[in-house]
Amino acid sequence: MSDQKKFVEEITSRDVDFAKWYTDIVKKAELIEYSSVRGCMVIRPNGYAIWENIQKNLDERFKATGHENVYMPMFIPESLLQKEKDHVEGFAPEVAWVTHGGSEKLQERLCVRPTSETLFCEHYANIIHSYRDLPKLYNQWCSVVRWEKTTRPFLRSLEFLWQEGHTAHATEEEAREETIKMLNVYAQFCEEVLAIPVVKGQKTEKEKFAGAVETYTIESMMHDGKALQSGTSHYFGDGFAKAFDIQYTDKNNQLQYVHQTSWGVSTRLIGALIMVHGDDNGLVLPPAVAPTQVAIIPIAMHKEGVLDKAREIANSLTGFRVKVDDTDNSPGWKFSQYEMLGVPLRLEIGPKDIEKNQCVLVRRDTREKIFTPLSELSQQISKTLQDIQKDMLERARQMRDQNTHDAVDFDTLCKFADEKIGFFRAMWCGDVACEEKIKEEAALTSRCIPFEQEKIADTCVCCKKPAKSLVYWGKAY
Amino acid sequence: MSDQKKFVEEITSRDVDFAKWYTDIVKKAELIEYSSVRGCMVIRPNGYAIWENIQKNLDERFKATGHENVYMPMFIPESLLQKEKDHVEGFAPEVAWVTHGGSEKLQERLCVRPTSETLFCEHYANIIHSYRDLPKLYNQWCSVVRWEKTTRPFLRSLEFLWQEGHTAHATEEEAREETIKMLNVYAQFCEEVLAIPVVKGQKTEKEKFAGAVETYTIESMMHDGKALQSGTSHYFGDGFAKAFDIQYTDKNNQLQYVHQTSWGVSTRLIGALIMVHGDDNGLVLPPAVAPTQVAIIPIAMHKEGVLDKAREIANSLTGFRVKVDDTDNSPGWKFSQYEMLGVPLRLEIGPKDIEKNQCVLVRRDTREKIFTPLSELSQQISKTLQDIQKDMLERARQMRDQNTHDAVDFDTLCKFADEKIGFFRAMWCGDVACEEKIKEEAALTSRCIPFEQEKIADTCVCCKKPAKSLVYWGKAY
Repeated sequence: MSDQKKFVEEITSRDVDFAKWYTDIVKKAELIEYSSVRGCMVIRPNGYAIWENIQKNLDERFKATGHENVYMPMFIPESLLQKEKDHVEGFAPEVAWVTHGGSEKLQERLCVRPTSETLFCEHYANIIHSYRDLPKLYNQWCSVVRWEKTTRPFLRSLEFLWQEGHTAHATEEEAREETIKMLNVYAQFCEEVLAIPVVKGQKTEKEKFAGAVETYTIESMMHDGKALQSGTSHYFGDGFAKAFDIQYTDKNNQLQYVHQTSWGVSTRLIGALIMVHGDDNGLVLPPAVAPTQVAIIPIAMHKEGVLDKAREIANSLTGFRVKVDDTDNSPGWKFSQYEMLGVPLRLEIGPKDIEKNQCVLVRRDTREKIFTPLSELSQQISKTLQDIQKDMLERARQMRDQNTHDAVDFDTLCKFADEKIGFFRAMWCGDVACEEKIKEEAALTSRCIPFEQEKIADTCVCCKKPAKSLVYWGKAY
Repeated sequence: MSDQKKFVEEITSRDVDFAKWYTDIVKKAELIEYSSVRGCMVIRPNGYAIWENIQKNLDERFKATGHENVYMPMFIPESLLQKEKDHVEGFAPEVAWVTHGGSEKLQERLCVRPTSETLFCEHYANIIHSYRDLPKLYNQWCSVVRWEKTTRPFLRSLEFLWQEGHTAHATEEEAREETIKMLNVYAQFCEEVLAIPVVKGQKTEKEKFAGAVETYTIESMMHDGKALQSGTSHYFGDGFAKAFDIQYTDKNNQLQYVHQTSWGVSTRLIGALIMVHGDDNGLVLPPAVAPTQVAIIPIAMHKEGVLDKAREIANSLTGFRVKVDDTDNSPGWKFSQYEMLGVPLRLEIGPKDIEKNQCVLVRRDTREKIFTPLSELSQQISKTLQDIQKDMLERARQMRDQNTHDAVDFDTLCKFADEKIGFFRAMWCGDVACEEKIKEEAALTSRCIPFEQEKIADTCVCCKKPAKSLVYWGKAY
């Protein structure tokens, strides 16, 4: 097993240096590679295959809720970006500007889209005329660019892949319903597919999206206790509609502004998968999103019949994503490699197993060994993958709950922020001054005002005035 | 039927003004909408759904031939673009330049990728070390930008969607095999899915890709007789490998350069679908790629049981992409609309049909009506969709063959080019001077040197020196 030891020694321990552990995993599991463009990454096959599974599953959920995919230009003329005041203030400082096409200087600069509200609004103004044209439920899969100063793979990069839903509705009520519906789609996806529990809630005024009336978020907790904003859904009211003149004729022949929403998740979710489930041996992927669910490793591969049996097993396992490793690396090296890649189940098959008509299944998450008769293999794999999926969510939930702390006074909040990791729940008066003081003195930002409210005290943790709501605070990526 | 007439009257006849007909269809079938960014288009749900079907089918073919998907940055630093001399000369004049990030001027300009050879080469230099790392068979789905002067939806736009395969191999033989294999994948896809016959062949030196040793192409003929280069596959030799220093250690521990290929198709294929199959009533989509294969139109929808029956039929038709139109538009209007959208089969069901336990199927391509007992519906639809797919390919092949003309002397070639539409086959000596003369005097460009060679004369159609090969000439999009 010296191979295995060496392989694993090359990554930093998660509890020694979480940030270094993260970048080690990202490189060692071959998810990304750096490029010569600052802050831009190459998403390698192992990373992109995870993204494809995320896309496929989410896209089905979007279509099942009536959404259609479109593609907008990647460029936004400067004048178009400026149409909505709050929006341009939020994004203009961090966009990339195209100033030349070929050898000619452009009359108007174009920014590379940081998000596409302005383009969707322009399009909606063109195609929405009557109440019959509503609702418009559009989504787009694309890449966007934000000129960040410091970057980290998947979590914050100059360019990233995402989807952005943009919808237009006849009424405020319908738009509000859509905003919450899509937040719930994200939350269900995170729990059912990524095995990541989330807190659903509303962002404070300070933290909301540039141009939104309200921003909703799902917040998840990483293994180091930090929060990751994992998806957002915005209610825009008719602010963009007024700025872009998106009007329709209603059933009474009156002109009305539409009400809009937007919502998005990104390749950031891959960062969440790594930081919620990974361990000192590498990635741990939930079966629902793992590109390979079962890695078959022939033992004593040179012995007659072993490789044939491994392939026969692979062919019999229909409905699972299976891979046989027939390379000439040692079994120990392969064990470590598939642990690094986070493959949920390893299947070992050697001459002795073949004699006994069995094989060994090894769970990536618990390392539990399950000796399984070949006649029951398919059912056992199906059951074990389901168990892994369920157990991973449960462990992540326990981790989060154990690291969620209630503070009713400011000193305790500061002390907790200093000594503990995780989410800190505290009452808030709604005043931005308190939010800023908490950021300054406890180094915590408001994560969200959770939908599930609870009254843990009567007064604001900061100013002691009457509290309006319970808030989740934390340190965030 | 006055609704229907009016609907159709709004598009220009194909034989009166083919270019205007094309843009009418593109707008009227709601495939695209223009945006405020010159030369960039919004791909609307009807257009994007076709692209999704193209992607899905091609992606399966790429994966079945061992390829993996990755994602590269959208920016290329100017110095990286310049590493391969021919390549930069070909692309630099038509790229978009990013010069500012936020408010800061960049130290080095970045171009928005017009194609990603340079990025893949940089990445390959980083990750290829040993013969064990080969081959690398990567593909990427993304958008690219080329700063074109004149643009047309799908055919030539500043930004377009495509896939680009980039592979690295240990030997020239393997790389050459890959180049031809992927050209064949494209050709089969075009014939089997898009019902578009193609001529496979090699580009002349003059027409090959910037940086390639050899470029292979599939050429299809549009309804107006013009050629559309529908996909290309390039053999690079070790030219890029030398420019980017992509070397590996072979089994004898010797350093070797890799041999590379690249290959791509784009949203241009949607333009081909329109121009090969469309008619004066709109789009005609082959069933294999049509977002909706069967449009169910209830007749006398207000009568009891009609809509229920239509929905019951829709639910029973598993395995087909079916849509029930229950809007309050008239049946006549709906007939025209689904003809405009190119839906392969229309299914009419009214009170009289219900009494007789039957319905009417109407083929989009031939308008043939097929009265079908409901008990045989699924089999009939399956058979008819197959017939449509086969017949569309056959008609396109006949059109192409009827408009392919052989010319053995220069006068005939010029006369044909003047009087006829289509492909012109003529012998060529291989000299670029003759190619240029043909372009100048007959206004024809070389489309390809076809794989299927035939000797229709001994001498070059232009200079009368001994001929080297048969060439397809044409006017091209």
